[in-house]
Amino acid sequence: MIVEIISIGTELILGDLIDTNAAYIAQKITASGFNIHYMTTVGDNRDRMVDTLARAIKRSELIITTGGLGPTDDDLTREAIAESTGCPLQEESELLQHLVNYFKQRNYQMTANNRKQVLLPEGARIIKNQLGTAPGILLEKKDYTIIAMPGVPGEMQAMLTTEVIPYLKKYSKDLIKSRVLKFFMIGESTLETQLKDILERQTNPTMALLAGRGEVKLRITAKASSAQKADLLLDRAEETIRERTAQYIYSNNDQDLAEVVGQLLEKKGLTLALAESCTGGLLGNRITDIPGSSAYFSGGLVTYSNQSKIEQLGVQVLTLEKHGAVSRESVAEMAEGVRNKMSSDLGLSVSGIAGPGGGNAEKPVGLIFIALADREKTVTYRHKLHRDRIWNKWMSSQYALYYLYQYLTKI
Amino acid sequence: MIVEIISIGTELILGDLIDTNAAYIAQKITASGFNIHYMTTVGDNRDRMVDTLARAIKRSELIITTGGLGPTDDDLTREAIAESTGCPLQEESELLQHLVNYFKQRNYQMTANNRKQVLLPEGARIIKNQLGTAPGILLEKKDYTIIAMPGVPGEMQAMLTTEVIPYLKKYSKDLIKSRVLKFFMIGESTLETQLKDILERQTNPTMALLAGRGEVKLRITAKASSAQKADLLLDRAEETIRERTAQYIYSNNDQDLAEVVGQLLEKKGLTLALAESCTGGLLGNRITDIPGSSAYFSGGLVTYSNQSKIEQLGVQVLTLEKHGAVSRESVAEMAEGVRNKMSSDLGLSVSGIAGPGGGNAEKPVGLIFIALADREKTVTYRHKLHRDRIWNKWMSSQYALYYLYQYLTKI
Repeated sequence: MIVEIISIGTELILGDLIDTNAAYIAQKITASGFNIHYMTTVGDNRDRMVDTLARAIKRSELIITTGGLGPTDDDLTREAIAESTGCPLQEESELLQHLVNYFKQRNYQMTANNRKQVLLPEGARIIKNQLGTAPGILLEKKDYTIIAMPGVPGEMQAMLTTEVIPYLKKYSKDLIKSRVLKFFMIGESTLETQLKDILERQTNPTMALLAGRGEVKLRITAKASSAQKADLLLDRAEETIRERTAQYIYSNNDQDLAEVVGQLLEKKGLTLALAESCTGGLLGNRITDIPGSSAYFSGGLVTYSNQSKIEQLGVQVLTLEKHGAVSRESVAEMAEGVRNKMSSDLGLSVSGIAGPGGGNAEKPVGLIFIALADREKTVTYRHKLHRDRIWNKWMSSQYALYYLYQYLTKI
Repeated sequence: MIVEIISIGTELILGDLIDTNAAYIAQKITASGFNIHYMTTVGDNRDRMVDTLARAIKRSELIITTGGLGPTDDDLTREAIAESTGCPLQEESELLQHLVNYFKQRNYQMTANNRKQVLLPEGARIIKNQLGTAPGILLEKKDYTIIAMPGVPGEMQAMLTTEVIPYLKKYSKDLIKSRVLKFFMIGESTLETQLKDILERQTNPTMALLAGRGEVKLRITAKASSAQKADLLLDRAEETIRERTAQYIYSNNDQDLAEVVGQLLEKKGLTLALAESCTGGLLGNRITDIPGSSAYFSGGLVTYSNQSKIEQLGVQVLTLEKHGAVSRESVAEMAEGVRNKMSSDLGLSVSGIAGPGGGNAEKPVGLIFIALADREKTVTYRHKLHRDRIWNKWMSSQYALYYLYQYLTKI
């Protein structure tokens, strides 16, 4: 089945927004066993949208669009689909009720332009949108199918995974399952070299290396007649990968480090407290992004100044004077301090120079220290990072979570 | 001049790589006064590349491609340009010399496939590539111009800014400037209703409403013969917008709330301390994403448990028993507590139920309280949010920063 993706939005054409939707859809659709031939981006211009849709209808069997379903005047996807397919727009009463309720629940004023969102091309069905007001559109014709989704990434992603992908199952006999291994402490090119022969001889399952944010992903995708058979293929593939690189793998289902760490803390019945300097709360934010984290997260302190390190964490004045705030000694006292203060089993701390300012010859920008303290001992780690402030903060949190992960897998 | 951007690469079509090149090019090209009508992405497939180029030649005057210029077998952009334009490939001797030197300088072995990179369509000129082996291609014909650049972002960006943009100057007299207003506390559809007539009669500058993450953006774009004249147009437009919606606007240059708040804190010489419960560190993370935030950010406490609220912030046991942790009373004591503890001018606190668990009839998921305390008084706010955990955390931080912003603009 030939698939074409159309991204709609003037902000995309102007380059004000990077189109992450197309890649997201492409990955899921490819993983479902379909072939994407084209991706096109058009602005909120009716004629060009109609022109693009008409061409897609000629050359593709499944056309997936994102964007242009909102309530405003420059949201023209409905109109463009109606014109290019010859299916006039009609008001969907059930949809109107849903929309009215949506606004009632939130005590919002429903403005007139919202009414636009209850229009559907003749013969089309709606696709549920759990997260927003704009429903998706499913239009099945003899030679092609059009699926229109909103452009807001969160809404589109939820709609794609919960509604669209299950619907597409009927078009492919074989079922496709994929598994994402996540690697840390090894670069993409090194990993590729180590797995070269495996990656080259792959057919089913297929494997793709993807660079993540300071980590590497390997997606294994198997095609089989049953879930059981697919799982077997995935298990075998994962095994051969692990034989060479097990020590770098921290997840085999695309989890974030914070989630893996959270599950381990819960399983072992341990509590965690955080003392953050350069990460400024990022670590706590990642830990608490995981539902149920209150079960193992005691809390944290963001000690940005020396004063607060002394007053809040009991770091010795002498230590700060002698070694500075960014040092093994200080970060160790931070981890021990927060562990005692929050009376938790473990204390994890980060201190460093995120940049762009604050560095010097001895303590350059990107220098970070991490400490992990339990009842018996405190272990410290040193890293030198090399990019901008946001990256340095992110990688500091990655390393901190990774060392905690290693600790938890060893006890 | 009508411009079309074509991104080439199978990794893009598979969604293994997000196309950041198209947006980068679009922004620079738009800022140079050109109108982009289409962006297309094709895999490394010769027929589809030729098909796409042929269509672009028909409908656009300037065609910019990225990718497919490398030495490997699946780099087919040269061949596709030659076929779609009818300009056969010829070996460019000067280019061969350049390539030979490139490898000699670096003591690399020049493999045979590199020779491919010295082929140029008849009548084309090369565009220098300071960072890599693959030169760009410039082909000027009567009705259209094709510019082909490599896909490696670094090489493409250097080539675009140092070679392509200066070359394009000859095609446009006008220059383009844009300004982004950011709105909070008003929805996209409501805002559009309030500005409908202005948005409708716009020509120069043009205006576009963009939905942000819990906020709305309005981009104003002006075309003029000088930067001064463009600024004047932008100023006038901003003024008319402000006449109606000034109270919702917190930035006129696309800043994040945390950045706006940071500048105000610095300007007023005030320090801030945070007490975070449901946001778990997100507020601190956003504040410290801003370089130089250590000047006004004293630090924060992430008090996830009642115990830590009592021990770390001095929240009264009685308050927690009588009103619960998620209440005006508790959040007020948190803000006052952290302000005293960090001896800062201001204390900002958030407590709520992010979900999915932890809610009940009286205190449902999405209920959040915010408190802002200064020396004299503490003000509290209540909100009910309606989405998932990540969204509820984000919006809690948005509201907290916004109330702080309002406070700082009023004193």
